[in-house]
Amino acid sequence: MERIRREADRAKTERAELYAILDAALVGTFATVLDGRPWTVPMLYGRVDDRLYLHGSSGAGALRHVAAGAPANLAVTLIDGIVVADNLFNSSANYRSAVVRGNAERVWADEAYEALTLLSERLIPGRSAEVRPHTSKELAATLVLRMEIGDGNWTAKVRTGPPGEPDVDPTIWAGVVPMTTAYGTPVAAPWVAKGMPVPPSVAAYADPS
Amino acid sequence: MERIRREADRAKTERAELYAILDAALVGTFATVLDGRPWTVPMLYGRVDDRLYLHGSSGAGALRHVAAGAPANLAVTLIDGIVVADNLFNSSANYRSAVVRGNAERVWADEAYEALTLLSERLIPGRSAEVRPHTSKELAATLVLRMEIGDGNWTAKVRTGPPGEPDVDPTIWAGVVPMTTAYGTPVAAPWVAKGMPVPPSVAAYADPS
Repeated sequence: MERIRREADRAKTERAELYAILDAALVGTFATVLDGRPWTVPMLYGRVDDRLYLHGSSGAGALRHVAAGAPANLAVTLIDGIVVADNLFNSSANYRSAVVRGNAERVWADEAYEALTLLSERLIPGRSAEVRPHTSKELAATLVLRMEIGDGNWTAKVRTGPPGEPDVDPTIWAGVVPMTTAYGTPVAAPWVAKGMPVPPSVAAYADPS
Repeated sequence: MERIRREADRAKTERAELYAILDAALVGTFATVLDGRPWTVPMLYGRVDDRLYLHGSSGAGALRHVAAGAPANLAVTLIDGIVVADNLFNSSANYRSAVVRGNAERVWADEAYEALTLLSERLIPGRSAEVRPHTSKELAATLVLRMEIGDGNWTAKVRTGPPGEPDVDPTIWAGVVPMTTAYGTPVAAPWVAKGMPVPPSVAAYADPS
């Protein structure tokens, strides 16, 4: 009984780690199998509880193939640092990665509408309150897929911290070069009037809290 | 004749764009098919001319499966900016992406040795001149794969520049938030003597030329 509780606790912690990775990245690699070969495409995605949402053009052949039941896989990788060991073999990268495996189902109507808003909010948090809502024409042009994050159909991996202990010469420098994503000064589109202030959603990128 | 020459020129330009994307990214998503389902893993990789090299543990089942002839696919994505349109539907990301499809062959001896050095140099340029070379034990523990970048087995896509022209209200701000990778101050491993200077390879990350 105690063992089962510990395992349940551990599963809960691990799922929280998975969600943290999925929520930290913006783009993943979506994969399926087409004519017996792997087929991949970069994709924005978003998560609500144990559901992933992805979208593409409703004319996209491979996505329709997935919606019709072909197996799917979303892979997400964040690189957090260059791990510099005292030798080449142990040098590597610090990273967080997640893979969710399963099938994807096309969703419609309210669920599709809400998923599109979620995907916009992932890209530009707060933007959906600043501009008009999706139109029904936009909704019709978009294929929205849902993947369930079920027990046993995902993997999360994290490498963090310094390189392994030196095997040769402790006087050789070893350590980590941290890597992060930096956001530059927003560049207005050519038709935007000079001096128009950036909206709060865009300003938040330049000054992340 | 003129048409053929133009097409050859265009193919050459496009291949140069592919190589630029492959050389700019550090990590890709390697995909294969296992039991009829997509199987993916993040991987460091390197390119020499029209060859990609990847590596993993020589005990890794999926890589051995690929070395035995299973189809393979390397997907690379770089996100360069958040594209903020005047509406949610046209908002997106600026990116460079590449997919190389094909099969991978295990390589040995000198070719494997040189590929491992290439992969180290991709991770930490200049490091291979600062530390000892690979040992034969390390080489034996590593599975090195080569993928040929043949004509017609790759795709490169680039989205750049501002969002599409506004469809609703030109007084709504629109533009791009540039994204780049930033390298932080190197963090020495706990056993490194205080004040030991970082080697030139590591210093180059903090002060990229």
